[in-house]
Order: sequence, then C-alpha cells, then structure tokens
Amino acid sequence: MKKRIVVNLPVEELPKSWYNVKADLPFKMDPPLNPMTKEVMNPADMTAIFPKAIVEQEISEERFIEIPEPVLDEYAVYRPSPLIRATFLEEFLRTPARIYYKYEGNSPTGSHKTNTAIAQAYFNRVEGVTELTTETGAGQWGSALSYAGRKFGLTVRVFMVRNSYETKPMRQHMMRMFNGTVEPSPGENTESGRNFLKNDKNYPGSLGMAISEAVEIVLNSKDKKYSLGSVLDHVLLHQTVIGLEVERQLEILNEKPTIMLGCHGGGSNFGGFVLPFIKRKLEGEKIEFVACEPESCPSLSKGEFRYDYGDSAGLTPMLKMYTLGRDFVPPTIHAGGLRYHGAAPLVSRLVKEKIVTPENFPQEETFKAGILFATIEGIIPAPESCHAIAGAIRRAISARERREEEVIVFNLSGSGLLDLWSYANIIESNERLLELEGVKG
Amino acid sequence: MKKRIVVNLPVEELPKSWYNVKADLPFKMDPPLNPMTKEVMNPADMTAIFPKAIVEQEISEERFIEIPEPVLDEYAVYRPSPLIRATFLEEFLRTPARIYYKYEGNSPTGSHKTNTAIAQAYFNRVEGVTELTTETGAGQWGSALSYAGRKFGLTVRVFMVRNSYETKPMRQHMMRMFNGTVEPSPGENTESGRNFLKNDKNYPGSLGMAISEAVEIVLNSKDKKYSLGSVLDHVLLHQTVIGLEVERQLEILNEKPTIMLGCHGGGSNFGGFVLPFIKRKLEGEKIEFVACEPESCPSLSKGEFRYDYGDSAGLTPMLKMYTLGRDFVPPTIHAGGLRYHGAAPLVSRLVKEKIVTPENFPQEETFKAGILFATIEGIIPAPESCHAIAGAIRRAISARERREEEVIVFNLSGSGLLDLWSYANIIESNERLLELEGVKG
Repeated sequence: MKKRIVVNLPVEELPKSWYNVKADLPFKMDPPLNPMTKEVMNPADMTAIFPKAIVEQEISEERFIEIPEPVLDEYAVYRPSPLIRATFLEEFLRTPARIYYKYEGNSPTGSHKTNTAIAQAYFNRVEGVTELTTETGAGQWGSALSYAGRKFGLTVRVFMVRNSYETKPMRQHMMRMFNGTVEPSPGENTESGRNFLKNDKNYPGSLGMAISEAVEIVLNSKDKKYSLGSVLDHVLLHQTVIGLEVERQLEILNEKPTIMLGCHGGGSNFGGFVLPFIKRKLEGEKIEFVACEPESCPSLSKGEFRYDYGDSAGLTPMLKMYTLGRDFVPPTIHAGGLRYHGAAPLVSRLVKEKIVTPENFPQEETFKAGILFATIEGIIPAPESCHAIAGAIRRAISARERREEEVIVFNLSGSGLLDLWSYANIIESNERLLELEGVKG
Repeated sequence: MKKRIVVNLPVEELPKSWYNVKADLPFKMDPPLNPMTKEVMNPADMTAIFPKAIVEQEISEERFIEIPEPVLDEYAVYRPSPLIRATFLEEFLRTPARIYYKYEGNSPTGSHKTNTAIAQAYFNRVEGVTELTTETGAGQWGSALSYAGRKFGLTVRVFMVRNSYETKPMRQHMMRMFNGTVEPSPGENTESGRNFLKNDKNYPGSLGMAISEAVEIVLNSKDKKYSLGSVLDHVLLHQTVIGLEVERQLEILNEKPTIMLGCHGGGSNFGGFVLPFIKRKLEGEKIEFVACEPESCPSLSKGEFRYDYGDSAGLTPMLKMYTLGRDFVPPTIHAGGLRYHGAAPLVSRLVKEKIVTPENFPQEETFKAGILFATIEGIIPAPESCHAIAGAIRRAISARERREEEVIVFNLSGSGLLDLWSYANIIESNERLLELEGVKG
C-alpha cells in the first residue's frame, strides 16, 4: 500500500512564542519614514492607528515574543497544522527529491491569515478597542479578521475593493457569518471614498484606496483601530508559528530542508514560513529560500529597492522595500492575494542581501501545477498557493535532471474551494491545462 | 492552555476491509423487486447497469470484504480522517457530555462521497468500463465521482438537476477540474430528457429524472455503467471505512459511545458511520443511534415502510424502505443532499426494528447549530452536516439537564465552504441566528 506521511503535532507542541528574526540578522533594518515629513517615524505616532502592544512588536529586537494564553487557546482550535510528505506527487514526477508541504488551508477561514488576525484582535481587545477596520481584496484577510473579531467580541468593519465586492460574494458571506460588516470601496461612508467617487463614479477600487478608507475611520476615533494583514514586521512575526511548527515537524522526520518555497504577495505567509530557518543559512548551511511571485506582479524580482508608500494615496508610513511603484496597477489575475506593488521590508532586505531568491511564474504554469496537485495529492490549492507548488515542481524536476537528492519544503497557504471559478475560467481558456501525462489509466 | 484532542491514525491503520453488517443482523433483508414484474430481482439483471463486483457486494453476506490495494492507495491520499473532541463546544454548552466528531470534510472534494466513488470507479475500471454516468443534485456526488474517475482513467458524465445546474456553479467547476462533463437534466441528449422537456420545457429537474437519463445512456452501451452515490447496500458498505476508523479512534481514547448521530438523506454517511457499531446494541450495550433528518423531508420519521421505487419515473428496482412516496417533492431547502423521498433499505430496516431512532430538525435550528459550530470549533459545516450537529447539541443540553455523563459521537460529513451562499441567505432572513449567547467578549 502506498504511504502518505503526515506529521501531526499534538496541541501541547504549539509554539509558545513567536520568533523575531531581527534578533539574529547581521544588519539593522531601515526604519519606516513619516509619510508627511519623510523623517524617521516616531513609533508613538503609529499608536494613532495600531494598539501599543502591536507597535512594540513592530519595533522589538527580542528574539522570542511570548504568545499570550488566550491567543494560544484560539490557535488550539485549528493548530498545529499538518506537514505532509507529497509521496504521490514525488512518484508522479519521478523525482529523487523528497517533497513536503505545510498545509494552512484547514484553518477556520481557509488560509494562514487567521494566525495574525487572532493575535491582532486579542491585543486590540486588551487595550479596550471595540472596533477594527481593515481593507480586503478577494476577502481572505477580511474573513480571517471577522472570525478573530467574533472570538474576542470586537466589531469588524471591512472595506472590500469594489470590483471584488461585486464579483466575489463567497468570502463576503463568510465575513457576515462571523458578524463582520462589509462595504464596497470606494464608498460614500468616508471622505476619501466620496472624493474618489467624485472623480470617477465607476472606479473599480484598489487595495490602496480601501486602506485609506479604513485608516480614515480610526483617525477620527478613540476606540477604533486599524488592522493590516501583511507586509509589516509584526504580521510576519505572528505568522512564524507556521515555520516554528515546520521546524519541529522536520526534526521529528530527521530531515534538513535544502529548498524552502512559499508564494509571495505582501510577504506574510512566505515570511512566517521561512524566517525561523534564516539563521541556518547565515550559519553556512546549504539551504535555498525561494519567494514565488506572479510574472505579472514581480515586486521582488523586478522592483526597485527603495522607500515607498504602502498605499496608493500615500497616507501610510514609507517603507524600505522592493516596489514596482505605488502607482503600479497589476493586471487582474486570479491570485488576488499576490497583487501588491510592494513587499514586506523584511523579505525585501533578505532578497537584497541575497539570502532569499525571488522567482516568478506565468499564471498558466501555476494553475497547471494546482490542477495536477489537486488530482494527485487530493487538495485543491488557492491560486496564490499554486505559485509555491509550481516552484516546488520546477525544483523537483531539476533534481530529477541533476539526479540529486533534495529536501523541498513548501507552504501551502490556503484552500482553493472558494476559487473554483478561477480554475474553471482558466481551464475554459486552455483545455490543455487538464492534461496530466502519466496519471493512472 | 485549552486543549483540543485530535486522534489522527497513521496511514498503516487504514481499515483493510469494509464491514458488511448483514453478516451480523438477526434478520434477513427484503430483496429488491424487478420494477416491471414486481418479482424478486435476479442479481444478474443488475449487471445491465452495474459491474459484476458491485452486484456481488450488493448481495454478499460475508462479514468483511477486502478493500483492493489500488483503492487503499487512493484512500491513503486523504484517509484516515481525524476524530476530534469538541472541547470548545462542550465548554460553551456547559455540558457534562464528552462530544466527539469524525471529520470527513478534508476529503479531496470536501465530503464523504469520495469513499464510495473511488471504490466504484475502481471496480468498473477492472471490468473494462470506460465511462460512468450518474446524477447529481447540488453536486457533491458528481464531483466525488469525477475525481475518482480521473484517478482511474474513466470518463465521467454527470446529469445535474437543472435547477441546481443553473444556480450552483461551484461544484460544476470542480467536476470540470477533474475532467468530468456536466449537463443539465432534463436535457436534449437522452430520450427521457427530450420527452420530459416536451411536456414542460421549463421543468427545473429532479434527482429521479436525472437518474433516468443516466441509466438510459448505459442501457444502450457495453462499456458504460451507471454509478449511484447513496441508498444501496454496496454504497453503505464502502462508507463503513468511516465507522471502522472511529471504532479504532475511540478505542485509543478508551471511550465507549453512548449516542451516535449522523445526518440522513439517502443514508450513506449515516450508515457508513454507525453500521460497525450496530452489533454492540444487538449484544445489549447501551448505545443510541440517531438519524438526523430535515423536518421538511422526514422519510424515516414520517414515511411508510414499504416497497417503493428509487426514482420518480419508476425505472429503478423497488426497494423495501421508509418512503414519502416517489411522487413526494421535498420543498427546496439548503441541505440539498437530504432531499430524497426514500431511505437506504438497511437504515430503514434498522429503524423498523427500533435499533436506529430517526429525529427531525427545522432548517433554522440546523443553521444556528452550524454557525455556532463554525464560530466555536473553527470548521464551517455543510448544511447537511448541520443536522448532525443540531442533534448532538440537543443531546448535550439534555445531558446537562439530567446531569448525566454521555459520550456523544457524530459524523461531520462535509465542509460548508461551498455553501456560504446558503448561510448568507438564512442569516439575511433571520439575523438572530448570529446570536451566540456566551461567546467570549
């Protein structure tokens, strides 16, 4: 009988701290700049939109930051997540590589986003915040934050990019199920929204615009704060539960990864997955980190490393990062979660230092990888996660050609059950994506 | 830290045989009747639509039927499935009962249906069949069979009830992803379909009609067979992998179930879950089996126990079962998988003998249970599965009131990620369903 190897950690092995890679980096990160003055930002200024605890985490240099008990309790609902050896895929590819994947798609809202949503909702709650505002594109982040808000008794108000709002109702339904409220952005409920609509009443919206609306609400309030789902250091910090679990799971298998891959949009799933392993490379171990981007939005592979704004309106702090420019409008692709002009400063710097390698993928290759994976491994991956799968397949084939043993580990950041329309759409335009040479029969 | 207890079996503990409850029943089952002659059906007649191996399983009295290696290989892709102790739900309900659930929603197509789809595709393949036809309502079964057909190199042609075809595109997309073809039923491609459309060109379709179309295709062919997703003995047989795994998982926990519940439509997830435990009750153990039905389609609770046709056109063999009459048209509810006028003969007879207890639930109660479960336990259940959750909650509250320890185990047959529209629809009509007294915060 064929064997699928699944490493399930008992709940007692949930990491008790998040790992802060900054304690181990041989360089200092460039600080955020104030968007008005372009001077180094005073952390206190950030408390206008974030709670104090989050601001402290954003600038902390401590190696480990304890996970509070109530956050651990909520992690225990769905974590630790499994690490699975893709034996069926290995066999299909006839590769000497051993391929493993961490699966985050069984989380309550279907992606890794809940890992930071729960933490952020908790820290806000402790400081007396009653409402969180945020932006969302396709809705992964908005639904994760709605779920987390529900858990800690916070109201969550989500500004959803209008174009997605009108075409992707499923994740809106999920937000409502968890008592979140959703409104299309730009909309009539904020000044920024109204101004925007004045210029173009058919504007399809953008993440940058939605951020402006969400931030505007909290600037005029005492008990409301804003919450961000990627890019910033504290978000990557919370996501390190992923990599820390993988570390333990690989240890149980007595495996040392030689290639680690994750898809890369803002950088949170990629960062959370690889940051705990960065030290190994700094210490001379042979290990490659690959950030898998869409060809159509190659921030890390083709962007410039410089200070830029996080949003298109220029209201957020300026971050030193790889950027395609805040005016860059990525083409509409199905992996909505990867359509971001910039990249997490932490990942950007690791790319700059040649510790992380960016690689980009045409959309068809990623969907072909996803369809293959669903058929062979029995999990339908999110279009974002398909980028990591495509990367793993490239490396597995290369290992076959070089006849070299590799230990490939990738992060499968989310389930694609809510993205079936995207698959149908791609298949319709190219039926050959369904051809899987070598499938049984 | 709160603890969620998850029992994950290693793949080596996959059951190697299906369990045939007929070997242990103290009575003989009534045989199917030929729909034309109303005489006892000759099993050989069934090979017109089913492969020989399936017909043999349908009539077998052997206690254990070995699972072929290639089927085990495909089970290993997603099985064994976890048994989870609902510690968070117990705490929320302040019940002295211990509540466990078997989770089938992580299967490749999101429900338990793959367990029999893989087996049926395999046995057909071995006998040289090249195409399978079937019917589907909401699409769970059609997508499971498409996946299984893909695995064994069979073409799968699905007749989907027209009304669902037009309103529920997501599972159609999934069928196409696995190379299945889907057409609305009734349609112009079969004689039955054309006749039906002649009478009423806007007919929304029914499972009975779709069965007729799927059967018509194979009656005129040598290398095509028909495949059914519930009701018949061989389907329940394949689904016993669920109950057999649960048996082992409870043994590891040193637990004896006192109440077992599953939702009940055609009877396959319920049967597969409880059949391996029936012997315990026959031997005098205190254990209750509850089949949870929708109030609007209460075949077991309010039907008659008699011979009836499996389809509305009267083409299938007649089965001795609880039935609301083959002309009964259940109201449109969101749990499409439970809208069936009859019930599996095996479950029906167990109800008749008072070994299984039917219980029915109004739709709002089931969705309230589902929303509570999603919020507390972090899994969004299929509307069908919500019936089992509602039943478990009723019993957990009763245990609290009686101050009695109970061991409640239920089958969570599928994920609700593709049913978010149904949740949104119900919530919109009654916002109070979102009220969860006692949620943190």
